Amino acid sequence: MAVSDAQLANAIRALSMDAVEAANSGHPGMPMGMADVATVLFTKYLKYDPTDPHWPDRDRFVLSAGHGSMLIYSLLHLTGYARPTIEDIANFRQLGSPCAGHPENFELPGIECTTGPLGQGVAMAVGMAIAERHLNAEFGDALVDHRTWVIAGDGCLMEGVNHEAIGLAGHLGLGRLIVLWDDNKITIDGSTDLSTSEDIPARYRATGWHVVECDGHDTADIARAFDEALAETGKPTLVRCRTIIGKGAPNKGGSHKVHGSPLGADEVAATRAALVWESEPFVLPDDIRAAWAEAGRVAAVPHADWTARLESAGNGAEFTARMAGDFDLDAVAKVALDDIARGGAKVATRKSSELVLEKLTAAYPALVGGSADLTPSNNTQTKSTATAMTASDYSGRYVHYGIREFGMAAAMNGMALHGGIVPYGGTFLVFSDYARPAIRLAALQQARSIFVMTHDSIGLGEDGPTHQPVEHVTSLRLIPNLDVWRPCDSVETAEAWACAVARKDGPSLLALTRQNLRQVRKAGGENLSAKGGYRLRAATAERRVILIATGSEVEIALDVADALEADGIGADVVSMPCWSRFDAQSAAYRDDVLPPVAPEQVLRVSIEAGTTIGWERYTMVQGLRFGIDRFGASASADKLYDYFGLTAAKIAPQVKAALQG
Amino acid sequence: MAVSDAQLANAIRALSMDAVEAANSGHPGMPMGMADVATVLFTKYLKYDPTDPHWPDRDRFVLSAGHGSMLIYSLLHLTGYARPTIEDIANFRQLGSPCAGHPENFELPGIECTTGPLGQGVAMAVGMAIAERHLNAEFGDALVDHRTWVIAGDGCLMEGVNHEAIGLAGHLGLGRLIVLWDDNKITIDGSTDLSTSEDIPARYRATGWHVVECDGHDTADIARAFDEALAETGKPTLVRCRTIIGKGAPNKGGSHKVHGSPLGADEVAATRAALVWESEPFVLPDDIRAAWAEAGRVAAVPHADWTARLESAGNGAEFTARMAGDFDLDAVAKVALDDIARGGAKVATRKSSELVLEKLTAAYPALVGGSADLTPSNNTQTKSTATAMTASDYSGRYVHYGIREFGMAAAMNGMALHGGIVPYGGTFLVFSDYARPAIRLAALQQARSIFVMTHDSIGLGEDGPTHQPVEHVTSLRLIPNLDVWRPCDSVETAEAWACAVARKDGPSLLALTRQNLRQVRKAGGENLSAKGGYRLRAATAERRVILIATGSEVEIALDVADALEADGIGADVVSMPCWSRFDAQSAAYRDDVLPPVAPEQVLRVSIEAGTTIGWERYTMVQGLRFGIDRFGASASADKLYDYFGLTAAKIAPQVKAALQG
Repeated sequence: MAVSDAQLANAIRALSMDAVEAANSGHPGMPMGMADVATVLFTKYLKYDPTDPHWPDRDRFVLSAGHGSMLIYSLLHLTGYARPTIEDIANFRQLGSPCAGHPENFELPGIECTTGPLGQGVAMAVGMAIAERHLNAEFGDALVDHRTWVIAGDGCLMEGVNHEAIGLAGHLGLGRLIVLWDDNKITIDGSTDLSTSEDIPARYRATGWHVVECDGHDTADIARAFDEALAETGKPTLVRCRTIIGKGAPNKGGSHKVHGSPLGADEVAATRAALVWESEPFVLPDDIRAAWAEAGRVAAVPHADWTARLESAGNGAEFTARMAGDFDLDAVAKVALDDIARGGAKVATRKSSELVLEKLTAAYPALVGGSADLTPSNNTQTKSTATAMTASDYSGRYVHYGIREFGMAAAMNGMALHGGIVPYGGTFLVFSDYARPAIRLAALQQARSIFVMTHDSIGLGEDGPTHQPVEHVTSLRLIPNLDVWRPCDSVETAEAWACAVARKDGPSLLALTRQNLRQVRKAGGENLSAKGGYRLRAATAERRVILIATGSEVEIALDVADALEADGIGADVVSMPCWSRFDAQSAAYRDDVLPPVAPEQVLRVSIEAGTTIGWERYTMVQGLRFGIDRFGASASADKLYDYFGLTAAKIAPQVKAALQG
Repeated sequence: MAVSDAQLANAIRALSMDAVEAANSGHPGMPMGMADVATVLFTKYLKYDPTDPHWPDRDRFVLSAGHGSMLIYSLLHLTGYARPTIEDIANFRQLGSPCAGHPENFELPGIECTTGPLGQGVAMAVGMAIAERHLNAEFGDALVDHRTWVIAGDGCLMEGVNHEAIGLAGHLGLGRLIVLWDDNKITIDGSTDLSTSEDIPARYRATGWHVVECDGHDTADIARAFDEALAETGKPTLVRCRTIIGKGAPNKGGSHKVHGSPLGADEVAATRAALVWESEPFVLPDDIRAAWAEAGRVAAVPHADWTARLESAGNGAEFTARMAGDFDLDAVAKVALDDIARGGAKVATRKSSELVLEKLTAAYPALVGGSADLTPSNNTQTKSTATAMTASDYSGRYVHYGIREFGMAAAMNGMALHGGIVPYGGTFLVFSDYARPAIRLAALQQARSIFVMTHDSIGLGEDGPTHQPVEHVTSLRLIPNLDVWRPCDSVETAEAWACAVARKDGPSLLALTRQNLRQVRKAGGENLSAKGGYRLRAATAERRVILIATGSEVEIALDVADALEADGIGADVVSMPCWSRFDAQSAAYRDDVLPPVAPEQVLRVSIEAGTTIGWERYTMVQGLRFGIDRFGASASADKLYDYFGLTAAKIAPQVKAALQG
């Protein structure tokens, strides 16, 4: 007897409730509620190959409602991925299991991105769908022809980033993006009626989406809705799946009690009875296991056909290299540094960044740029990216993300994780706060997103404290696996860009000035910035002081050094564009730059137009820290630097006094 | 001859373009484009009294598109506020002028909130409108009967927080909220067509809003639209004002060139000619000045009537005290500490917080609670706040904010700035990232918002790295004027709450545990937490070590101290629940807690389940720092603390080794 859709779906329900029960932790409601929809998707619609999770032309599936992680763990296991094994699932949420509390792309192939922080899965999926259309425009239907599917809950739709993401998707007409909305009318606080009265389909339609509806427990109706979604190629589709949360649990189903807690032994038993599911926990009936395995093999032939096309295609090798995404640091640095020596002209690092990007975007077609509506300020558009991506032509290499910083950053993550694209996007550094959840998720996911954040201090001047970063550079440095760069001139900007592009295991963020800066380095030679911090200038007299600075304050440090040396006080100047890279150097290197001698022998001084907290790490508590530990003010940059005491004329005497004290 | 509306509006245009020109910096386009709409609002609709900017029953006006700051500076000056003077305006964007780059509530009475970071003005206005309805429900029409008006641009509508804000406003049926949308079809990158295709009126309607449209340069049509807005009392209204950006500038008007740059001398001259505006810069014709002044006096009689009602009302004194918002720290502490001693029972600080809130919400009706759909996890609802606010009854003291962290935080800021309410709201600490732009703006604006952030470390356990804060506590400490609390038990939680409620000049954030903690303090006596850090336990043997910890790690520090003292090594334990408060103490106090002696004499050790960066400030570089400088993992809290080395068994030997080394 053939295995029914209901039995296939019940396998998901059983694994999910049993894993949550064993962990005594987790969210059974969503996997049980969306089991039928997921079954239709993974048995009849999704293009994937468990034997090659990285097949470039696979459909991307994003579980935006990441708390329902047992749904994807169940599906990966059932369809035949090497992991998770049934033991992995039995160890759900335990140390060492790849079945983490929320799905993590770095734990399991088949998980396209890390989700859980609500709303971001949909936004990343928008980026994946953009990547697909862009690469399709470049490489053609034979090699790039896939869809992006998302399961999202009410939380994903209520978050602000949803508005940004669907606005961008609607504008770009991403017809190959399909969002399956788990419309179960339940949130953690209770009924969705407690907090929202929105007509979601009408909102999506107003934003340029196609909307269809189905009974999320009727597999024929689900398939009918999916077919309607596929038929609409000019707009993204929202499929409203009317479901019962925790479907199958006879007493707790349909209630918020089943959202984030184990069902409990009694309800598990009652569910087993209701579903007529007689297997022990983590045991699957052979026929159901076989039917799921069969479903997992459905794309074997299309995959083989695709491989044949790749091998015969003229641009096959180029495509493969593009998807591999390898960039050699020395090669990138050479491109970026070429012709960057500016002959001493003062130039803002945001302008330096543009000069570098002109070279890099010309050399590397994988770079796709954009800005959250600050293109003329962020200097992110180049000749090679002069053409914007539109709904009628996806070949452009620039995305006008609109006034959507968070949506931009999340979409960039999706593009990076899709592969084939190295996205960079700009906004003001102060608005990194708006994008911060996605910047963090880029770091966690090891996504090569490059955030171009200009106007990086009080040096932006008259826009005032709402726009002046103070705490931002250091607050971003605290995010694990994020490289934060604050280069001091054109050469360091080029070096930082080279490191960011070549980096494969995480994001980079460049903090760049609005105001013009002196050129302090000459082009050519080693990428000194790659070490994170280095001696820019050595003391000529006996070293009594080490001045450590970043970005726009390096030239101030040089002036302070001049003033000290004029008085016979030897002063090194250390430029430290990237803390995390410096911290990763050998102790010998770090001790050479910042010798571990007593503060009485060598006084360390930091200068950075931002919070001083954290600089004790390099200056020691006994050193001096010049910075800004309050909000900024509105005035010209020069006046503000003077007002906040960040000039050589004000700093040098304090350093001298400290040496004498 | 009567002064025409056009002449009134041209006064705004002239002041705006001249101020931007003098500063050689600023945004003339919006003030010139919205001058006609603003003129109708400030001469015929808005209820305000320049002689008493803090009149509690004034309409609130929010310039959400804060870059158009010259619009509000012009209006405040023209209608007769004491400041800005014409000299202040002539010094627009200069050091010391209250006319900052963007409007700042702490600079000028009449500015209700600080705007510029896009989207937040609308969201704060939603909070103000909530505050108005709630206080109306409590104090009646005689004392509380005003509206909230907003001017917003395309940027404000495109930001994600707009979705959250309007969703909440629509759900709560805030019929006294009116948003004037400056529909000029221009963003910084160019036409709005570059990045959006949304049908904004349809989206607002789908979200429960009333939408009307008008020609934003036809004052009769504007008034007609305003009348339609006033007639709709059950829904908030969006007034779509079709405008030309930079209206009046004959060559640059209607283009993005007029958005954020001075017009330039030639275009200023051409504009003067086109507007037939013959006065010198910063000079106003007497008749126009008089007409504006007359408009500014329109509410004098209603204000007097209101004052009479206040004086005769039985609840007038209560209302005045409520709006004054004074809380005595000792009194609050007494309430909060009363009965909090838990007899040694282990309890999570999120639960301690609930116990404290039970007392505080019973004692202080100004406290209005809420959560971004994590009520059962944040423990934010009490008996006194058991009733939620709804569209049909605003008297409830709890807001189900929905899955809208950013919108919640911004709305809280609006409620706090409105006055009469001390808002507190909860989410998971990791999602402070979502709300961060509003947390920063709370600090800048000196708004008494209290953020209740639970699940504050790896101690939340199985939800894993997406949900485990690592960098958050310290990254929030970097925000100027934000008190970040991480209490270690029920007593410290009560003390932190007392400080947060009593504080008038800024926001507070409580980082609270999911997991149960030992009680380390006894109730009663001085509020020790108010000092930010204090010696919790003194060494019994000769002091060789000072262990500094916060929150859930204080009990670990006590265990480490036990282990050291058992070996005859004297160890102080310092609890440091609030860095900013500790840093504000006298040097004598700080030196008593952390004596400035050489590390060889007394080794300082920090223990906190988060990033170690920054702790050098207290441990000195030579001290030890136990923390987590990477992302977390999924497992039970106990297993994770062991895995990350944060147990007394793992820390004590390292401290001993350091003492011997």
